[in-house]
Amino acid sequence: MATYIFGHTNPDSDSIVGAISLAYLKNQIGEECIATRQGEISPETEFILEKFGMTAPELKTSYAGEKVYLVDFSDLAQAPHDIKEATILGIVDHHKLGDITTDTPLECWIRPIGCSNTVIKEMYDYHKVAIPKDIAGMMMCAILSDTVIFKSPTCTKADTKAVKELAEICGIEDYKALAMEMFIAKSAVEGASARNLNTRDYKAFDMNGTRVGVGQLEMVDISVLESRIPELFADMQLMKEEDGLHTIIILLTDIMKEGSQLLCLSDDASKVESAFGIKLQENQAWLDGVLSRKKQVIPFLQPQF
Amino acid sequence: MATYIFGHTNPDSDSIVGAISLAYLKNQIGEECIATRQGEISPETEFILEKFGMTAPELKTSYAGEKVYLVDFSDLAQAPHDIKEATILGIVDHHKLGDITTDTPLECWIRPIGCSNTVIKEMYDYHKVAIPKDIAGMMMCAILSDTVIFKSPTCTKADTKAVKELAEICGIEDYKALAMEMFIAKSAVEGASARNLNTRDYKAFDMNGTRVGVGQLEMVDISVLESRIPELFADMQLMKEEDGLHTIIILLTDIMKEGSQLLCLSDDASKVESAFGIKLQENQAWLDGVLSRKKQVIPFLQPQF
Repeated sequence: MATYIFGHTNPDSDSIVGAISLAYLKNQIGEECIATRQGEISPETEFILEKFGMTAPELKTSYAGEKVYLVDFSDLAQAPHDIKEATILGIVDHHKLGDITTDTPLECWIRPIGCSNTVIKEMYDYHKVAIPKDIAGMMMCAILSDTVIFKSPTCTKADTKAVKELAEICGIEDYKALAMEMFIAKSAVEGASARNLNTRDYKAFDMNGTRVGVGQLEMVDISVLESRIPELFADMQLMKEEDGLHTIIILLTDIMKEGSQLLCLSDDASKVESAFGIKLQENQAWLDGVLSRKKQVIPFLQPQF
Repeated sequence: MATYIFGHTNPDSDSIVGAISLAYLKNQIGEECIATRQGEISPETEFILEKFGMTAPELKTSYAGEKVYLVDFSDLAQAPHDIKEATILGIVDHHKLGDITTDTPLECWIRPIGCSNTVIKEMYDYHKVAIPKDIAGMMMCAILSDTVIFKSPTCTKADTKAVKELAEICGIEDYKALAMEMFIAKSAVEGASARNLNTRDYKAFDMNGTRVGVGQLEMVDISVLESRIPELFADMQLMKEEDGLHTIIILLTDIMKEGSQLLCLSDDASKVESAFGIKLQENQAWLDGVLSRKKQVIPFLQPQF
């Protein structure tokens, strides 16, 4: 029986590429594994898959009775609805430790670094398995995406080292140019619905019993979204109601200006204000230097609940 | 400011040795760390410390405001009372994933293998740090203890390989003879109170909201305990009341006969009976082949709650 490997709901490039790269590694070391995904492919991931001639993993949202590896998350809120009926063989991640628990011993490769694919690169090295060119290229892109081309405070030496080694394997010298192309693909908003924009990289968190949603839209220039902000707020209100959220935050992250416009609807906005030491104006604030949801947003928000 | 490294409450040899061996490694790679312990040293651990001329880590039970690494556990029930006020930098473990969560990214080295010290051996290799002779000897003993000299079903190739490499480093050829000496030291029960016996290797688990305690006493010959069983039950009754347990189990594990005598007091003993497919007689049953609490007891017990 095969084992499934997948990332979080609403997958980003790290989740999709991580499922593919980890499944390849596991198959090479004799564990039959299939990469899957819990949700739709983002424009950025589409760009990466196309660039390296790969197809998206199969969509699969139910895993009862299956054996699984999780990539890029350890929170129940980002897991399939029936994860408790699955056997979790392992977790590869680079986030805070979430509320997923298991009944049996497992394999966890979790590191406080920029990207799950950097951890997977380490696993390839550990198992002495060669990385195919196309997979190396995708892993490189996933790391460049998660670290915002090394600008994010989450970026570590391990990430830059992995990118350099992967660039050599896939034979792409000017990986920063490729990354800019990728971020431009990611920034495409024309024709996208407000819901699509709000949920492109959206995660729900259980913060000590309170449900908080935080989405992030990384753009090379967020000013193109200015006229659409009322529309984004209207949809955030719907998302808040549909999902029973106490607080919903959308971060419009400008990777060139290196900061984020925070949009927020909350049952108690003072919690958000004291988390970041800001005063909201029309439910908004500019967070200078904030590029990382994981390192610069969640750790400040969580203690408020 | 230093960081503390410690194992679970009521520490076994893996917890004590793991704190020492991980602290040494971390200090070598430039992270100032201090090994500590949450509880008393067992006779087995005393034997190991004495054999290699080491002293026990300092006793410390409160960690609010401190940075910590956890060794050999990820369950809140086995953590210091104020763990939520500490910053967990990492977890090194070989058990099922427990209910500890963090607010910030961390380092987890968790493997489905026989011993945390085997994982730590892997970390030394990863960081290319040489293991001092005395620490290598203690790590070897911890692995031989946790794997019951390779007899436990939890034992993997990684564990036997680590023992062989550590034996070479510490220069002890006949490590099985040393392990038998260690188990004989561990089997010393003369003069020990019932509470001491019940809690030598005792862990409390939160099983879907129900509190269950499982202790294990590994002996080279459990028949020496026969006359003390009524006394053990009387103390189990007290422990059950003191700690608000639904179920308390003590396993008297005979490492030569390769099985365990299960002693049990429960608000619903049928759960224990169906977990193991047994019929209790006078609250007891012989579990043939059962040596591992982690692999042969907890995974069967947990789904009953």
